[in-house]
Amino acid sequence: MIGQAAADSCCGALASAPLDDERAAELAKVFKALGDPVRLRLLSMIASREGGEVCVCEMTPAFDLSQPTISHHLKLLRQAGLIDCERRGTWVYYWVLPGVLDRLAEFLTTPQSARVSG
Amino acid sequence: MIGQAAADSCCGALASAPLDDERAAELAKVFKALGDPVRLRLLSMIASREGGEVCVCEMTPAFDLSQPTISHHLKLLRQAGLIDCERRGTWVYYWVLPGVLDRLAEFLTTPQSARVSG
Repeated sequence: MIGQAAADSCCGALASAPLDDERAAELAKVFKALGDPVRLRLLSMIASREGGEVCVCEMTPAFDLSQPTISHHLKLLRQAGLIDCERRGTWVYYWVLPGVLDRLAEFLTTPQSARVSG
Repeated sequence: MIGQAAADSCCGALASAPLDDERAAELAKVFKALGDPVRLRLLSMIASREGGEVCVCEMTPAFDLSQPTISHHLKLLRQAGLIDCERRGTWVYYWVLPGVLDRLAEFLTTPQSARVSG
């Protein structure tokens, strides 16, 4: 859903025309998921990993938080359509959904036509 | 502050290396401000306005919300370093701080080196 909202950004960047209710609601969910320092750090750990996958067992030690708390934050990132995961044996592995961050970036980028000089 | 956080994105995009605590906290404030549909719509109204300025008197009628509520949301966007405002006579005028959305977009954009094919 969010992927779709972001995919439409060619025709609806933040600065190209006033957002309608529906897209604003969809996109607000994604930004809300990003609006927490622990979730931003988790997402950054996953997004910056060469190969693209991170085991939850590698993320927990970086935080002074319980594993259930980390898992809850990861669940919110997943529900926002930013990451996905798969259980393999004992551990769950996470990756960023392809293109989702770039589409979000595109949504925020000021279209050339709307750019105010100075 | 946020402007600075975003300005540093050349050396600290979300996907280039794991975010440190401090930058995560700064950037989470900005994303939290964006994580509300009313605030996203307000920001979009301001960002998409040719000339770059919007009177609060033009924004209120677009929402089924009281003027104090709208003003509160605008205050949160301002505290996040996304917009600024100036009172002129009866009304307050708002504009997007130059470059802030583009810097935020740059922060989210996957560096070429980290882009996973497929």
